[in-house]
Amino acid sequence: MPSISKKGHQMPESPIRKLAPYAEKAVKQGKKIYHLNIGQPDIKTPEIALKAISNHSLKILEYSSSNGSEQYRKKIANYYSKHKIDVNQDEIIVTTGGSEALLFAFGSILDTDDEVIIPEPFYANFNSFSTASGAKIVPVISKIEDNFALPPIEEFEKLITPKTKAILICNPGNPTGYLYSKEEINKLAKIVIKNDLFLIADEVYREFIYDGNEHYSILREPNLENNAIVIDSVSKRYSMCGARIGCIVSKNKEVIKTALKFAQARLSPPTLAQIACEAALDTPQSYFNDVKNEYVKRRNTLIEGLQKIDGIKVAKPKGAFYCIVELPIKNADNFAQWLLESFDVDGETIMVAPAAGFYSTPNVGLNQIRLAYVLNEESLKKSILILEKALKKYKD
Amino acid sequence: MPSISKKGHQMPESPIRKLAPYAEKAVKQGKKIYHLNIGQPDIKTPEIALKAISNHSLKILEYSSSNGSEQYRKKIANYYSKHKIDVNQDEIIVTTGGSEALLFAFGSILDTDDEVIIPEPFYANFNSFSTASGAKIVPVISKIEDNFALPPIEEFEKLITPKTKAILICNPGNPTGYLYSKEEINKLAKIVIKNDLFLIADEVYREFIYDGNEHYSILREPNLENNAIVIDSVSKRYSMCGARIGCIVSKNKEVIKTALKFAQARLSPPTLAQIACEAALDTPQSYFNDVKNEYVKRRNTLIEGLQKIDGIKVAKPKGAFYCIVELPIKNADNFAQWLLESFDVDGETIMVAPAAGFYSTPNVGLNQIRLAYVLNEESLKKSILILEKALKKYKD
Ligand SMILES: Cc1ncc(COP(=O)(O)O)c(C=O)c1O
Ligand SMILES: Cc1ncc(COP(=O)(O)O)c(C=O)c1O
Repeated sequence: MPSISKKGHQMPESPIRKLAPYAEKAVKQGKKIYHLNIGQPDIKTPEIALKAISNHSLKILEYSSSNGSEQYRKKIANYYSKHKIDVNQDEIIVTTGGSEALLFAFGSILDTDDEVIIPEPFYANFNSFSTASGAKIVPVISKIEDNFALPPIEEFEKLITPKTKAILICNPGNPTGYLYSKEEINKLAKIVIKNDLFLIADEVYREFIYDGNEHYSILREPNLENNAIVIDSVSKRYSMCGARIGCIVSKNKEVIKTALKFAQARLSPPTLAQIACEAALDTPQSYFNDVKNEYVKRRNTLIEGLQKIDGIKVAKPKGAFYCIVELPIKNADNFAQWLLESFDVDGETIMVAPAAGFYSTPNVGLNQIRLAYVLNEESLKKSILILEKALKKYKD
Repeated sequence: MPSISKKGHQMPESPIRKLAPYAEKAVKQGKKIYHLNIGQPDIKTPEIALKAISNHSLKILEYSSSNGSEQYRKKIANYYSKHKIDVNQDEIIVTTGGSEALLFAFGSILDTDDEVIIPEPFYANFNSFSTASGAKIVPVISKIEDNFALPPIEEFEKLITPKTKAILICNPGNPTGYLYSKEEINKLAKIVIKNDLFLIADEVYREFIYDGNEHYSILREPNLENNAIVIDSVSKRYSMCGARIGCIVSKNKEVIKTALKFAQARLSPPTLAQIACEAALDTPQSYFNDVKNEYVKRRNTLIEGLQKIDGIKVAKPKGAFYCIVELPIKNADNFAQWLLESFDVDGETIMVAPAAGFYSTPNVGLNQIRLAYVLNEESLKKSILILEKALKKYKD
């Protein structure tokens, strides 16, 4: 029997999705599950986007250009200008989700054994994409005790080797909810310029910033034109995760030219979804205000609820809609499975993402979970109650 | 300035898309272009699929499961059973186009420097996907003189090394139009079983078989359960290239398990398009009969027209909608560019794909082009005329 690749063996299972079989079983047993494991918001997609789909007048569902429809890219450039980011349509390649933007970025700048430094904990699929591309993640630890702030610059400098090609940040952070300040971005800019590295910023949660703070994109940083690569996505912005549309943005012409070759290989991003996304760009500001208010309420409910539970540590997120929670247990993998298999409160339980998968350092985060506050307050309150009762009962 | 990856440098430009900038210029100059370069059919998408899109009742455009909607996978399994292929929904992963199915297959079975044997000429993006995954294509040459039949089995056996992991065929073939017989598949099955290799078959043109022949899928071949991986796509079947939906199919559980990890990393295939594809599976047989008749007429018109031109060699395709044409010129790259930049007949010209990109052997196919007969007969007739006149005028 032929054997699969080493790379295939090494590919991590998604911490967000690997418990799916247990969840399926629980549902079949009649349990109700609150899904705190995955960043699938329950927020409604803007009407304007849904209508654009219903009203389509396509006779042939054709490929778009490999870099995405020009009309759509122009509108994206215009969106960026509203966020004080100055790019044009040729500096944008439309991708099949932010996921594919990551794939293209990694492929364009990383060879086998090249290194990319990432503040840890980080979006779990960074692990997958680096494994797939043969590159190596070098983590720099950000701590729950520091609210996951940018680790000191010296920590980065210590890790830079001749193999280092990039620093990758997620801003605001999944899974930490951390928002980098302008000063922190300035510091990162200095290191990457000094060491001739790329700075990749995953900014898919740009809109989800709370408490009156402002997002500062790496594309606003002066002198960073050749170093900055932004990963973006409509998935969370318009609650359109299923559209599978994102983009990669860079003023570095070589990067765009190279990413385009990856884009040509897979022919085109989804056509229908681009129609929806173009329309979504006309979503009124009130939609975002409402959504933001909703997330702030959810965050406050969740964090305040969690803080009342004995033995729990949690950092208050400044953005996105996740938080890392440290639990008074040993192994969150087992706990998460147990929640689905062996626990319920009146037929209800919660699904959480064990946080170890958000670290690349072995044996770190084993007692942590990531929660996504993508459910309404009612459900969150019930979820907190379930977690509290579960912790009382659970023995590892 | 930070530098892009070696892999990025090595990524080939798509022979199908690389002339796009010249085409754009030509259009701006007011030229009309007949696109014979790309497999983007002008055939209408089935009404039933387009209506399913208009009638969607989504409130939130959510992720689907990473392996695709279960309901859709069940319907795909049912589609296969009608083609005498016995698979169930768990042996299928829905992908973002056949393109992504190739990416997952390569990632799941090939490590850096592993080898995959492919009859040449082959679908150009096989080159790109193997470069992206660090693997190496080992070509076995099929000849225009033999109508691109399967090269003798000894030719394959000569090429097998300890690094060989798979043989990849495209059946029916893009760009050759060749249809492998049951006997040829039997022979390939024997080699892969004997040498513990995978046999990957790209069968995205399964429906496009002419002259009363029947398609024989590798999934129908007995004893090949652990070796066979099929790449599939709705792009051409329903003229839904822009949907970006395909699938990878295998009865080898390790392969599916591994491919699923790649699938989880990118979260989900497009949701809207899966709705359209599910509906498309109910397309009446009459649609396919009409489409097939249309392609047979186009093929006959094209091949007969080409055969009348002095110095041209062409093999009659038995399937798909492409043919390789050998021209009495030296460099088809230059010729193709010249057609766009410097030639027209009454303001009209043709865009063709230089065939060198469909080979991995250097300096082979330099005097060949690939034509896609995806235009109506009228346009094809004009295209042939333009080609004939161009060849008379062109000097390389
Ligand atoms: C930080 C981050 N980046 C990228 C993605 C990829 O999302 P998508 O491919 O849906 O755009 C996600 C999804 O959760 C994410 O959280
Ligand atoms: C042989 C072959 N395989 C795969 C593909 C990929 O197509 P898609 O990604 O649109 O399914 C194509 C497209 O032309 C093709 O010709």
